[in-house]
Amino acid sequence: MKTLDGNAVRTQRTRERVLAESLRLFNERGEANVTTGMIADALGISPGNLYYHYRNKDEIVERLFRQFAQRMDLEPDAAADAANLIEDLWLYLHLTFEAIRDYRFLYRNLDDLLARNRKLKAQFNRIAERKYQGIVRLCEAMVQAKAMHANPEEIRVLARNILVVATYWLNFDSLRERRASAADGLGRGAYQVMSLVAPYLAGEARRHLGAVSRGYIRQSQASLG
Amino acid sequence: MKTLDGNAVRTQRTRERVLAESLRLFNERGEANVTTGMIADALGISPGNLYYHYRNKDEIVERLFRQFAQRMDLEPDAAADAANLIEDLWLYLHLTFEAIRDYRFLYRNLDDLLARNRKLKAQFNRIAERKYQGIVRLCEAMVQAKAMHANPEEIRVLARNILVVATYWLNFDSLRERRASAADGLGRGAYQVMSLVAPYLAGEARRHLGAVSRGYIRQSQASLG
Repeated sequence: MKTLDGNAVRTQRTRERVLAESLRLFNERGEANVTTGMIADALGISPGNLYYHYRNKDEIVERLFRQFAQRMDLEPDAAADAANLIEDLWLYLHLTFEAIRDYRFLYRNLDDLLARNRKLKAQFNRIAERKYQGIVRLCEAMVQAKAMHANPEEIRVLARNILVVATYWLNFDSLRERRASAADGLGRGAYQVMSLVAPYLAGEARRHLGAVSRGYIRQSQASLG
Repeated sequence: MKTLDGNAVRTQRTRERVLAESLRLFNERGEANVTTGMIADALGISPGNLYYHYRNKDEIVERLFRQFAQRMDLEPDAAADAANLIEDLWLYLHLTFEAIRDYRFLYRNLDDLLARNRKLKAQFNRIAERKYQGIVRLCEAMVQAKAMHANPEEIRVLARNILVVATYWLNFDSLRERRASAADGLGRGAYQVMSLVAPYLAGEARRHLGAVSRGYIRQSQASLG
């Protein structure tokens, strides 16, 4: 029988609460505008107690980045059949967007954050490269399944554009003056990305995608907003 | 006959030198990391002399933003014929990318900058909206000229994706570990954007575009880098 170690459990719970509260504050106010004092305050613990768990804010950011990297570490199944490949791509993009939204502070000042921290920059590049290869493989599988018409160079350029739009859509959307809900921005983002793929899909796959995406977003407006 | 006013000429030249040097420093180090003291220093003038010309850094940033807005204030000619429409789109994108590169500090921390300054945010939104409408009109003209196949909804989604990739390409490119020259990044950016348009082009227009873009970039690599 295992003995319950109350202290270890409490320590673990405090560490998790610090991460959750930091994430909330970073997303809400921007990481640069949040101090460890503010995090301790929001949790009702002393700064000393916080420092006992995390040496500094950078350590908290690195921990959150690791959580984010785990969320992003998923692969579409390139062995499925044509119809399932499109559903898979859709689900894959949706889960990717959800991870980006949940850790959006990372994307707000990506340049600054990665310039400051070479370890994060290397990790971010690994994630981007893996995403790129995953998209390329999925597209190659769709070409094999005759669900997509694209040559290797078109697939490479498409995969890069998917990455750029997926990486920056929420930033772009939040610059707009119109206020939309975050859920709306998420659906629109996935829709924008799927639209990159659409023109390369074969007739039936394209109609299938059209049906999936139309169910997902409200009618798109005439203005950029 | 006009009298030469030496003081007025010198004042004007100092104001221009301050802007040029600020732009250089902002682009190189990031706007947040440059103080008015550093700008004065780099020009070999006193801080007092600088303040005589510009009240504070925000005023310099707003001036530079106005220059940038003027550079961005160009419209493709939607009245040209099919072949010229594609050359126009290409030129239009290229000039847009050049403006973005020359004022790239604005894009580095766009979120922060626009959150801090509502006037800039409104101006940025006006530029984005105008670009969006310009791209939509150009696409409609290409559909009219039978150089493009796309329905109105496809054009709207395409125009938004063009804006996102054009806005963030240089940021995305600079996050990559591989070091490329700025000129290279510019060509690749225009190539990525033209690739968004390519699948909607009719046969001949598409081949024409392919020839234009291939002359423009080096062979694209197998990895994301």
